[in-house]
Amino acid sequence: MKILVDAMGGDHSPDEIIKGCVDALSVIESDIVLIGKEDVINAKVKEFYGKENIKEVSERITIKNADTVIQNEESPTSAIKNKKDSSMVVGFNMLKSDEGDAFVSAGSTGAFMAGGLLLVGRIKGIDRPALCPILPTYDGKGFMLVDSGANTNCRSLNLIQFAQMGSIYMNKVMHVENPKVGLLNIGAEEGKGNELTKETYVKFAENKAVNFYGNIEGRDMFTGDVDVVVSDGFTGNVALKTTEGVGAMVNKILKEELKANPWRKFLAMLLMPALKTIKKRMDYSEYGGALLLGIKKPMIKCHGTANAKIVKFTLIQAENFAKNKVVETIIEEMGKEKAKA
Amino acid sequence: MKILVDAMGGDHSPDEIIKGCVDALSVIESDIVLIGKEDVINAKVKEFYGKENIKEVSERITIKNADTVIQNEESPTSAIKNKKDSSMVVGFNMLKSDEGDAFVSAGSTGAFMAGGLLLVGRIKGIDRPALCPILPTYDGKGFMLVDSGANTNCRSLNLIQFAQMGSIYMNKVMHVENPKVGLLNIGAEEGKGNELTKETYVKFAENKAVNFYGNIEGRDMFTGDVDVVVSDGFTGNVALKTTEGVGAMVNKILKEELKANPWRKFLAMLLMPALKTIKKRMDYSEYGGALLLGIKKPMIKCHGTANAKIVKFTLIQAENFAKNKVVETIIEEMGKEKAKA
Repeated sequence: MKILVDAMGGDHSPDEIIKGCVDALSVIESDIVLIGKEDVINAKVKEFYGKENIKEVSERITIKNADTVIQNEESPTSAIKNKKDSSMVVGFNMLKSDEGDAFVSAGSTGAFMAGGLLLVGRIKGIDRPALCPILPTYDGKGFMLVDSGANTNCRSLNLIQFAQMGSIYMNKVMHVENPKVGLLNIGAEEGKGNELTKETYVKFAENKAVNFYGNIEGRDMFTGDVDVVVSDGFTGNVALKTTEGVGAMVNKILKEELKANPWRKFLAMLLMPALKTIKKRMDYSEYGGALLLGIKKPMIKCHGTANAKIVKFTLIQAENFAKNKVVETIIEEMGKEKAKA
Repeated sequence: MKILVDAMGGDHSPDEIIKGCVDALSVIESDIVLIGKEDVINAKVKEFYGKENIKEVSERITIKNADTVIQNEESPTSAIKNKKDSSMVVGFNMLKSDEGDAFVSAGSTGAFMAGGLLLVGRIKGIDRPALCPILPTYDGKGFMLVDSGANTNCRSLNLIQFAQMGSIYMNKVMHVENPKVGLLNIGAEEGKGNELTKETYVKFAENKAVNFYGNIEGRDMFTGDVDVVVSDGFTGNVALKTTEGVGAMVNKILKEELKANPWRKFLAMLLMPALKTIKKRMDYSEYGGALLLGIKKPMIKCHGTANAKIVKFTLIQAENFAKNKVVETIIEEMGKEKAKA
């Protein structure tokens, strides 16, 4: 298998992207295609890696030249249409023509979604692809949030499809038997919420294809009670970013207080194993990036701020995404639904 | 001044409510009216407090009998209409007839809002009252979230009014000069979001009465950059409960890891001052409960799970809410707007 990586997207590209890719080589089976300015990538690979492992690197990593980069400020659709020589568009075209099995980018989220839709294409039967990060739970299993921002306005039909796609991923890749799907809402009881959640609740209750848990409130998402949380992209985005915001606040306050004086610093040093485990349990970078589900090929959006560690975990996730035939299963299930209809 | 307290509402009533009230006596000037079953309250007050301070308690706390309680499962509107002898309805009627300056309850949120609207009444010019908790920020100032769940569906007019009410509270009670108002959205730039946030953004930009900061994303709410975050009640509720959920997860993981073995327990004990400060900085119970802004009298909804400490801080907040004439100022400002129109 071959994973295509946009070497030029993201705040810390190309350095952290390239480092993450080389680090991933020891834990994935796939080869990697780094897409971007060939001379820059070549120089970086040489700079970062000594002679002793340059052989493996050069055997398993190839470089595909792309002269430009799509910036966050650009209009996604026109950038995808016009910047044919950008690392993202080159990646999309390679993905489409089967020159790779999955595509990873830390670049513009808007362009990534637009390129998926316009250049790679939607799965038949899926009206709206969705952006799906995996977030942490107490018990370490994690849950998938669908949709975290691809679709600001949704109908209940979209949410049902989100649930189907999320369930397939959680089953195939995370090996969850019969994944439980919660509907993000402002109360646990039926009848709570806005028009969309009320209507969707009723449709979920009738739908046999999804293991519907019921409504789930923001505070209960992290308990591990459900495997997939379904939401329109506006609400899901607010939930995701609020999670990030509280996490960042906690991190900052912990650091400030534990470094406030030499005595605390000393104690914190002795407690380092505990602090590391705490960080690891709250950190969701090990789950990788946000999947773009509903597209004909595996695509993963890495966080714009991704460092080498996150890139490495995203590559592991990309390999599992492709290897476990998530896209193929979604295509098959949607085909069955159509045949029934 | 006199603060009316529903002694029977909430998961830990009446014990924690009564304890919180007696504890508050040393830090507030107001007297307290405990509303609920007289014999139960009397017995509890005697059980909790020795002879030495029973005199102050009996001088400053009076009991108003109410035989029943509105349960969370009851339909709010019909409970308010039919349970005339419930602690909440008795409280609302006392508040309305000026037998108290503010009303605090940890009971059913739905009934609290319904009673405010039906029995106490809306401020003229405010279309929808809003439920407004204060959440923590890095710098300890905190910010107000308006609306956290009173109004599932909102129009831009409602959000403008939320901003006006929130700004008045933050100015009068928290002493923030010219409070900055952020619109909760899924991107910082103008033009991002759903129909409501796009339309509201334009109206805020035209509105001179509000110090509009621009859009604010969930992850930036906790930085202290804005003093008021405005949202429809559905999105606000998801943001609030997600904040609670992440907080609870962090708390649980911290406890588990720091108590995992005797050595860690010992170190954690030595680090106790730091851990206490960390907890305090992330904890928003010291800000009190959620204000119901837009009602003709000061009303505060205490969290259903409130313990004595939270009740105590809510009473401090209730006193400040009444003393600083927030309601009067909102009435005045809305009157001016009407005169201008």
